[in-house]
Amino acid sequence: MRVLGIDPGLRNMGWGIIDVDGPRLAHVANGVCKSSGEDLARRLMSLFDQLTDVVQSHTPNVAAVEQTFVNKDGAGTLKLGQARGIAMLVPALAGLPVGEHAPNAVKKAVVGVGHAEKHQVEHMVKLQLPGVRLAGADATDALAIAICHAHHMQSGNTLQKALARVGA
Amino acid sequence: MRVLGIDPGLRNMGWGIIDVDGPRLAHVANGVCKSSGEDLARRLMSLFDQLTDVVQSHTPNVAAVEQTFVNKDGAGTLKLGQARGIAMLVPALAGLPVGEHAPNAVKKAVVGVGHAEKHQVEHMVKLQLPGVRLAGADATDALAIAICHAHHMQSGNTLQKALARVGA
Repeated sequence: MRVLGIDPGLRNMGWGIIDVDGPRLAHVANGVCKSSGEDLARRLMSLFDQLTDVVQSHTPNVAAVEQTFVNKDGAGTLKLGQARGIAMLVPALAGLPVGEHAPNAVKKAVVGVGHAEKHQVEHMVKLQLPGVRLAGADATDALAIAICHAHHMQSGNTLQKALARVGA
Repeated sequence: MRVLGIDPGLRNMGWGIIDVDGPRLAHVANGVCKSSGEDLARRLMSLFDQLTDVVQSHTPNVAAVEQTFVNKDGAGTLKLGQARGIAMLVPALAGLPVGEHAPNAVKKAVVGVGHAEKHQVEHMVKLQLPGVRLAGADATDALAIAICHAHHMQSGNTLQKALARVGA
């Protein structure tokens, strides 16, 4: 089972892919899609193209996107939402089930507490994926989301359901 | 010049298409894409698929999306942003320039004042597009956005720039 985690953002979209075999996790790849273009539509399209390349290159079976929340202002939330729409769409178009996890759930799954600091998350991602080279903070968050999703799938019979769904 | 206007929404995505020939406007088609699917990713994909059909069926040259704002709450703004990401992406993938217009600018262009009521917008859309049958409030708003964009293109030399850009 190959899991794609995505940390959505309009400027930087982090992604991370891990292989999950029972309790064993292995790093596959991670990176950051950076939007470019003269206007919003082109920036979204550049994220769409880059993320589509990631999915096609690494062929994950399931995806999970951070259920991010920006409370500071409406404009920031709208921008994030637009990027998040692309982050949800790309794996869906590839036929993948797409889960969502709140930031606190991700931290709890990776570090053990819901209010962990960034550096604690990075430390635990490195511990759980030995030898990983992180492409930046957004890629680290994306790997943490993928790890959270792996834990989530292993709890209960969620894993069986997911396997049946992707025909694995 | 064929203009596609889009009123983004996660539940209902209004669209409207007009032909613009100098000062003359003519209605082409209008409708509402309704999202369906068991989760957010599938709902976004259903909007993507329907909107892609609209673009492929009616081959507009330019598109414009309402620069909507929801101030009521972060969750609502995030949902809207996700739908708006799809609304911007689909015409961009088809190679169309994609403009944005604030609701007040749309009302000012269509009715003459920035704080017009819904029924005034509907009335003026019907007046400017004789014989139009409106598919609902979201479709009406989408046609108003298309009319606004047509006005916008005619002012200054914006039209020439857009024509050069789409090779028309």
